[in-house]
Amino acid sequence: MSAYREITGGVTAAQGFLAGAVSADIKGNGNEKLDVGALITTVPATVAGVFTMNTLAAAPVVVCRRRITGGSARAVIFNSGNANACTGAQGITDAERAAAHFAQRHNLPVESVLITSTGVIGVPLPMTRLLEALDRIELRPDGGKDAAIAIMTTDTHPKEVALQLSLHGRTITIGGMAKGSGMIHPNMATMLAYITTDAALTPSYAQALLRRVADRTFNMLTIDGDTSTNDSLLLFANGLADSQSLSEADEESAHFEEAITIVAERLAIMLARDGEGATKVIESHVFGAASDPDARCIARAIVQSPLVKTAIYGADPNWGRIACAVGYSGAQVNPSILDMSIEKYLLMQAGNPIPFDKQAVSEAIKASDHVHIVIHLHLGDATSRAWGCDLTEEYVHINAEYTT
Amino acid sequence: MSAYREITGGVTAAQGFLAGAVSADIKGNGNEKLDVGALITTVPATVAGVFTMNTLAAAPVVVCRRRITGGSARAVIFNSGNANACTGAQGITDAERAAAHFAQRHNLPVESVLITSTGVIGVPLPMTRLLEALDRIELRPDGGKDAAIAIMTTDTHPKEVALQLSLHGRTITIGGMAKGSGMIHPNMATMLAYITTDAALTPSYAQALLRRVADRTFNMLTIDGDTSTNDSLLLFANGLADSQSLSEADEESAHFEEAITIVAERLAIMLARDGEGATKVIESHVFGAASDPDARCIARAIVQSPLVKTAIYGADPNWGRIACAVGYSGAQVNPSILDMSIEKYLLMQAGNPIPFDKQAVSEAIKASDHVHIVIHLHLGDATSRAWGCDLTEEYVHINAEYTT
Repeated sequence: MSAYREITGGVTAAQGFLAGAVSADIKGNGNEKLDVGALITTVPATVAGVFTMNTLAAAPVVVCRRRITGGSARAVIFNSGNANACTGAQGITDAERAAAHFAQRHNLPVESVLITSTGVIGVPLPMTRLLEALDRIELRPDGGKDAAIAIMTTDTHPKEVALQLSLHGRTITIGGMAKGSGMIHPNMATMLAYITTDAALTPSYAQALLRRVADRTFNMLTIDGDTSTNDSLLLFANGLADSQSLSEADEESAHFEEAITIVAERLAIMLARDGEGATKVIESHVFGAASDPDARCIARAIVQSPLVKTAIYGADPNWGRIACAVGYSGAQVNPSILDMSIEKYLLMQAGNPIPFDKQAVSEAIKASDHVHIVIHLHLGDATSRAWGCDLTEEYVHINAEYTT
Repeated sequence: MSAYREITGGVTAAQGFLAGAVSADIKGNGNEKLDVGALITTVPATVAGVFTMNTLAAAPVVVCRRRITGGSARAVIFNSGNANACTGAQGITDAERAAAHFAQRHNLPVESVLITSTGVIGVPLPMTRLLEALDRIELRPDGGKDAAIAIMTTDTHPKEVALQLSLHGRTITIGGMAKGSGMIHPNMATMLAYITTDAALTPSYAQALLRRVADRTFNMLTIDGDTSTNDSLLLFANGLADSQSLSEADEESAHFEEAITIVAERLAIMLARDGEGATKVIESHVFGAASDPDARCIARAIVQSPLVKTAIYGADPNWGRIACAVGYSGAQVNPSILDMSIEKYLLMQAGNPIPFDKQAVSEAIKASDHVHIVIHLHLGDATSRAWGCDLTEEYVHINAEYTT
């Protein structure tokens, strides 16, 4: 069987995963939104993680990086409203203390509890409210949605996806949740994403797999070019549906990798769609690049360009800005053989502008909430896709008034 | 004498430079703004140029690059309203034809006439209107201001600067003009800038000098992270005020380099101030970096971050975003010894947040139209500065409605 069946649910869709969330007023502004949560697996799971490249990685990232080296975990706790970043040594102490508090209450090994945080940078965690909130969390098999809400910051809605596939003759489930929605840029693109599965994975396979999946999905997503201090992608695989451990050598591993890539890609596109102030997803497709890195950097340059983003927002078929982004991407380009399309309209062929119906292209952009830009370089076989969103007055509005 | 005397004027302030401009309706929308101009030197000048790194360099850039290799030039013609970029082979033919037309009329060697263009990408030059306009230009010793107006696109005002210094006991003049104001990012940062002087420079010194000056000034400027197809910086030195040719060996060369750097820096800051939709210049100062490239990339990451730019616009002392940009810059950083200030307020010391009066810092940002952000890395001796502007709703507004 090569098909995947999409099902409802998120991180608790797979067997043996429980989650829950409560409102703790982490920001201290009286807001009653769910902002502290936890995800637990009833049996130890193989764990893998991909984290921000930011050298000022937040305290929870430092703690997670250390703890996943064991290859196994039982739980992750999370909060929004405070990133616990740029908080010095106190930040590490606070992150470890919160994880230990949760571990003790649920009788788990301290090192088996991970922690992720998102929100404002440079403010110490309100530990009293956080610890008290952790005690109140009810872990339930239908708690995925609450968990997805608890990690939201300026996201306008929770982001969940789940699908099933057949592996070794058994039905296994993969679920995921993620939050955006500003300070989003490759390495890692997403701020927080969690994928759970009841398949069994060897730790080394899980880590290599997650890195490849991230490079094709979250790392090809950009909202505003800012690589956050807290970006974390975690994968938990508890093996409850299929005890036969997958590794690179398994002939069904490609099938599983495809499924998990779909989950990650769906989440990445949801993040693009809910980018701060966004009205449209922008997807760039690059064909015929001389190398994979070239394909990737062109795809990303296009969706990252403020001028492309504002043009798409204005339904303006100003393709010169796309060509400009291709040109400064750093990739090998031969301008005289370059083709470019927006949606179904060919606008540049072999480096020459093609006369086109400006009004029709503008209408096509206006009518779409997921605009496709296609580049063919005719230099080689490498391809890539990247995702972003348009840049609107609302992005400025949201970000000019975040902390004050 | 180590002082410089600022004087009024721009590219025609130095001896032997004439300029003029006319209205040619290059955009074809009936606008009567000056949009075609020329700058000429009455005697052959040493010429140097620094151009965009964009692989889709516009036709005029291709022509300029070729022609400056001779080390000497007599004139540059320029237009706004059309970039003559992504226009294929026709673009090169058109650029060469326009320059040849001007050369013939003024009895100049064809190869001694340069051309620069700025405006919309992907539209062929309206040659009939352009050639007719070139014939109408009156070249005058007070034509610098008209020339500065003719190169403007979304700039809100012309940008000129001129100063005098003593060199070899003679008074020499350096003048400049530039235009912005979107699609501006290092390599080159500015779209079009022209510097003229009546000093004499050897061609090899002029080129090396201009590259160094660009790296310290225009290449440390970013408006929106988009590196244009047309960025050009040209230097003309005609030697009319001082026939003694400057070279690296000359003991007064450091003095001259300082003066020309001041001219370039003034123009760069004018471009930042007039960035599309900008209300404030943001200047980052990096101290104590491990290397020059590290210092430069941190300084640029700060002024390029949309989240920093929107925070400054909102007078929001959200310094975590600055720390975040430092962290993802790619430079060597030790988070536990990092200091950071906005204006006169120390906000982070040795990696720890310092309690501060949020209202006071916000008021200080609000009151300033040139906000200083200072980072000390305590890792070495390298320093750098970069310039940018805040990101406002007006930037989105301008760029969502540019061609339609």
